[in-house]
Amino acid sequence: MFRVLLPSIAVLLIICSNRHSAVIAASGFAIVGYVVTDWLIPRVGASFVRIGLYGKDQSKPGKPVIPESVGAVSATVYLLVMFFCIPFMFYKYMVTTTPGGGIRGVSVEENGGGSLFPHGKLSEYLSSILCLESTALLGIADDLFDLRWRHKFFLPAIGAIPLLIVYYVDFGATHVLVPRFLHEWIKMTNIDLGWMYYAYMVSMTIFCPNSINILAGINGLEVGQSIILGVLALTNDALYLSMGPQASRESHRFSAVLVLPFLGVSAALWKWNRWPSKVFVGDTYCYFAGMVFAVVGILGHFSKTMLLLFLPQILNFIYSCPQLFNLVPCPRHRLPKFNETDWLLYPSRANLKDEPPKKIFIPVLKVLNKLRLIDLEYEGDAIVSCTNMTLINLILVWFGPMREDKLCNLILTLQLMIGLIAIVLRHTLGALLFGHDNLWIIV
Amino acid sequence: MFRVLLPSIAVLLIICSNRHSAVIAASGFAIVGYVVTDWLIPRVGASFVRIGLYGKDQSKPGKPVIPESVGAVSATVYLLVMFFCIPFMFYKYMVTTTPGGGIRGVSVEENGGGSLFPHGKLSEYLSSILCLESTALLGIADDLFDLRWRHKFFLPAIGAIPLLIVYYVDFGATHVLVPRFLHEWIKMTNIDLGWMYYAYMVSMTIFCPNSINILAGINGLEVGQSIILGVLALTNDALYLSMGPQASRESHRFSAVLVLPFLGVSAALWKWNRWPSKVFVGDTYCYFAGMVFAVVGILGHFSKTMLLLFLPQILNFIYSCPQLFNLVPCPRHRLPKFNETDWLLYPSRANLKDEPPKKIFIPVLKVLNKLRLIDLEYEGDAIVSCTNMTLINLILVWFGPMREDKLCNLILTLQLMIGLIAIVLRHTLGALLFGHDNLWIIV
Repeated sequence: MFRVLLPSIAVLLIICSNRHSAVIAASGFAIVGYVVTDWLIPRVGASFVRIGLYGKDQSKPGKPVIPESVGAVSATVYLLVMFFCIPFMFYKYMVTTTPGGGIRGVSVEENGGGSLFPHGKLSEYLSSILCLESTALLGIADDLFDLRWRHKFFLPAIGAIPLLIVYYVDFGATHVLVPRFLHEWIKMTNIDLGWMYYAYMVSMTIFCPNSINILAGINGLEVGQSIILGVLALTNDALYLSMGPQASRESHRFSAVLVLPFLGVSAALWKWNRWPSKVFVGDTYCYFAGMVFAVVGILGHFSKTMLLLFLPQILNFIYSCPQLFNLVPCPRHRLPKFNETDWLLYPSRANLKDEPPKKIFIPVLKVLNKLRLIDLEYEGDAIVSCTNMTLINLILVWFGPMREDKLCNLILTLQLMIGLIAIVLRHTLGALLFGHDNLWIIV
Repeated sequence: MFRVLLPSIAVLLIICSNRHSAVIAASGFAIVGYVVTDWLIPRVGASFVRIGLYGKDQSKPGKPVIPESVGAVSATVYLLVMFFCIPFMFYKYMVTTTPGGGIRGVSVEENGGGSLFPHGKLSEYLSSILCLESTALLGIADDLFDLRWRHKFFLPAIGAIPLLIVYYVDFGATHVLVPRFLHEWIKMTNIDLGWMYYAYMVSMTIFCPNSINILAGINGLEVGQSIILGVLALTNDALYLSMGPQASRESHRFSAVLVLPFLGVSAALWKWNRWPSKVFVGDTYCYFAGMVFAVVGILGHFSKTMLLLFLPQILNFIYSCPQLFNLVPCPRHRLPKFNETDWLLYPSRANLKDEPPKKIFIPVLKVLNKLRLIDLEYEGDAIVSCTNMTLINLILVWFGPMREDKLCNLILTLQLMIGLIAIVLRHTLGALLFGHDNLWIIV
């Protein structure tokens, strides 16, 4: 029954969007994305395994082999769905506009026929999809060839070039507000960061994809955190669309149109990737999901709010730094350790006996241990191991060993709570700090 | 010395384009594309073989195994180069335009700052790259998973959606001219084809990629024919840019900017793929190359001229139809037969003894044989085999067995000649038939 019901709702939504509300059409396409992805995943799994895209599930008895990189299916379906979404986003302009009549160089604006076609909006939309498609391509290359870190880390930035150019010609805004209590000191209400703002946006396109890829390793976590991020972004969009000033609505409509179909294809992936996983998502999905939020944040012009929603990922990244930069030995895999007898996950540990950390870092480790941010194991006075520095292990240190699905759900719940608090603080504390908030007062 | 010289020329061209001439910048980027592709191909070959992307060269003694799908490197480099090309295409607008100042909804046009930023042009450019990237993605999927014909045949059309939407809002021209001698009969000088014109463009995005994929099978032919097509398209562009009316220059500049870097990455691929091949190009390259010309033809608004340049591919397709539609048995591979003793290629044959063709088709075969379009082998009165119906085999039937490189060069020479004649006829006979030609007379 579900098989008939869902597509019917989708068709209904797309038609009833009456070619006016892009958000309703996008909700319809989200369902289409869900149905298609859900249909495809079990059908392509065997093909993925056949060409060598498979992995062992380390946290199951017998370490079963399951298809890897299946997130590429979600990414591809998303891109196709977004293609079909274009006419619905621009339909009202397309029917009321007299095209240029085939004479080159005469654009619709100059022709003065009917309402103006928003070429700028179309560029934004196209550059977003282009950026996401490039990211998917990078992810696929990584899944296939296992690119080296130093190669792949910066590559998303290249895919972001069209995005930044569109940002440049459409907004060009590079100023940031100065908190009120600093106004007197620096005698300015806002600072123009110039090219540094572009550098900041580039680092965002590098950070978002990589940060999701780092907070990974247990069934369902990559997709789960992306879905929570999507829900949080949508919540923020809904606030603006329902009570925000007119000027900000357009960009949050844009954000919702991009995020809704993403939630559709991700929900289908979650169905197959949640504990116990039937498929792995692969780097393609992690990069792709991260880039969706980078794109939405940059072109929706709320990149700083978006970074707030990435707080758990940022914390995980900072917490991982000592191991990522090899101050503390970093084993190849840092996933929690699976115990076959009780099916529980325990924090995994880095061996400090054979590979002692830099001397200077030992007091730091002891302080972190005191703060309960890591767990140290002693042999007499010597430290022999410490828990690996990932958010996943930290949760296990704090809450004790637990089953994989419980652990994933706990992390996702924490993420949702942190995100909701961040949104509330952004619109209350933010308003106090900066004197106004673009949700309440029209700037 | 070449290693230093080429990049220097490239840098010089890109800088000396003085941020004004997009064509000169594109020439520079063509060299960049050549150098990068040429550097990458020998370095990634082993990785391709490792993940199962390799093929046997059927027309060499011992059938050596070489990397397959290496054309994906050319496609990827092309896409990256085109990203970097964007600022140079739009630089003059970007520096003289005051951006919207961060206030959403205020586009540059309304802001009235400096010269107008050509958002329509940017959309065209972005939708072209998007379409090409989608085609590359399809090609990669095909190379990896060996998609079925009925699945992959129509897929390029989906990637073309953004392209057609941009065509719709930018030109919207759907009329075709009626030849002069028909004017009296049908009382019209042009016919508006309406949606049929879009159907025609969709079929072009399906035909071009697939037609290059069908005219393939000997070392260097896929890349070679694409390079010739590129040279022919550039020749046509050069005609318009040097002596055409102002209105048509913009679209031929656009065409040249897209084709030049394509020639760069293809030349590097040709170096490795020509006889004796070190790498195979794969479906990715064939689809990608075909789509470059479809895109250029459609958005450059000379899709009918472009189809003229595809005459050899069209002839090959029509000639292949009896076998493609199984009227005559079609063996899995139709490449010419390699003879190890004399290193020559002989026409390959379909066995009609075990699998006789439809009765009704036997007289047709005999007529084709009479016209020397196929070669039949008899046993008494019964036909036991016929040569496979591909242009490659036909050339061997006409000119006798020859070595693989000679065969490839002969086909490419014929293609170049047919193409040049087509361009000349299009601007002379075309002018006579339709009463005017947009190269000579401003319409």
